[in-house]
Amino acid sequence: MYEVYVAASFEAAHRLQRGFGPASRTHGHTYRLEVVVRGEDLAEDGTLLDIGQLREAVEGIAASLDYRDLDEVPGLAGKNTTAEVVADFCWEGLSPPLRGRGLASLAVRVWESPQVYAGREGTLG
Amino acid sequence: MYEVYVAASFEAAHRLQRGFGPASRTHGHTYRLEVVVRGEDLAEDGTLLDIGQLREAVEGIAASLDYRDLDEVPGLAGKNTTAEVVADFCWEGLSPPLRGRGLASLAVRVWESPQVYAGREGTLG
Amino acid sequence: MYEVYVAASFEAAHRLQRGFGPASRTHGHTYRLEVVVRGEDLAEDGTLLDIGQLREAVEGIAASLDYRDLDEVPGLAGKNTTAEVVADFCWEGLSPPLRGRGLASLAVRVWESPQVYAGREGTLG
Repeated sequence: MYEVYVAASFEAAHRLQRGFGPASRTHGHTYRLEVVVRGEDLAEDGTLLDIGQLREAVEGIAASLDYRDLDEVPGLAGKNTTAEVVADFCWEGLSPPLRGRGLASLAVRVWESPQVYAGREGTLG
Repeated sequence: MYEVYVAASFEAAHRLQRGFGPASRTHGHTYRLEVVVRGEDLAEDGTLLDIGQLREAVEGIAASLDYRDLDEVPGLAGKNTTAEVVADFCWEGLSPPLRGRGLASLAVRVWESPQVYAGREGTLG
Repeated sequence: MYEVYVAASFEAAHRLQRGFGPASRTHGHTYRLEVVVRGEDLAEDGTLLDIGQLREAVEGIAASLDYRDLDEVPGLAGKNTTAEVVADFCWEGLSPPLRGRGLASLAVRVWESPQVYAGREGTLG
């Protein structure tokens, strides 16, 4: 099994609903977005997939969240913008162009700080 | 599958038994303790579990080892305090309150330096 | 399941073939090599395996690539030296002495920068 990893970052504000103490106040993080794609086989050119292309996709989604209030971003507005939910959002955004290419799975991790992240992993197909 | 990660650190002394060269002398590390909890589903509030609660538990166990000689800590005294054994100790300490909450697994990694860690992963249930 | 991790680094040049844009020019990276060995049980001395021994092996393979042009290293010359292929090379170099010791798997990750890595994982036995 091979894997390829790309990271990007974005600065965003958010606030949690339903009683998470100080996290209920509007605050923000320097988010780090980590993405791992796994698959069984390398192509003839020695790649699992083109890291440059993956990097563009990951940096694109990070840029779409950069200097935003996550609670106002379409697809996140109305949800509780926990790190889990932001990971979900990024997973759903990144997975469609990765399907049908013989890849096994996609994992997304959303770091709110160097001490905390939440992630989602799921099969591609 | 979702996951939530929390890290903490502690400063501790120890020495290894049974011939590990310089590691047989009393020395110490700035340990980094990393904890990952995995589970299939998010609760209605968009969390796998409350990161704040997990953070308290992880920081609590780190605090209990901070500025200690690990070879004198109850539960570790008499054992060979390898990073694997310290990971075991933390896993056993952290897992009980995480059981019975629909979570799948708990992983603990104990870093002795930025170049070395040992970890333990096991199912919750 | 237990795991043990060791990291090392090396400085090397390379260039990609077959149209990877600027990566087709000779350039280089401060590579970080991460190695994880997994297994079910600890030995009586509280170790999965001797981290010192693993560290020697990992630092040995990193030293063999340090200040080299990867495209001229025996075993890599003639291949497209993507991070996946370098991970393959390290996996193949590290795995033989780890077999037959009751270990479950070996994972190798080759970081080209703090934003990008490729890795290979496979069973030992």
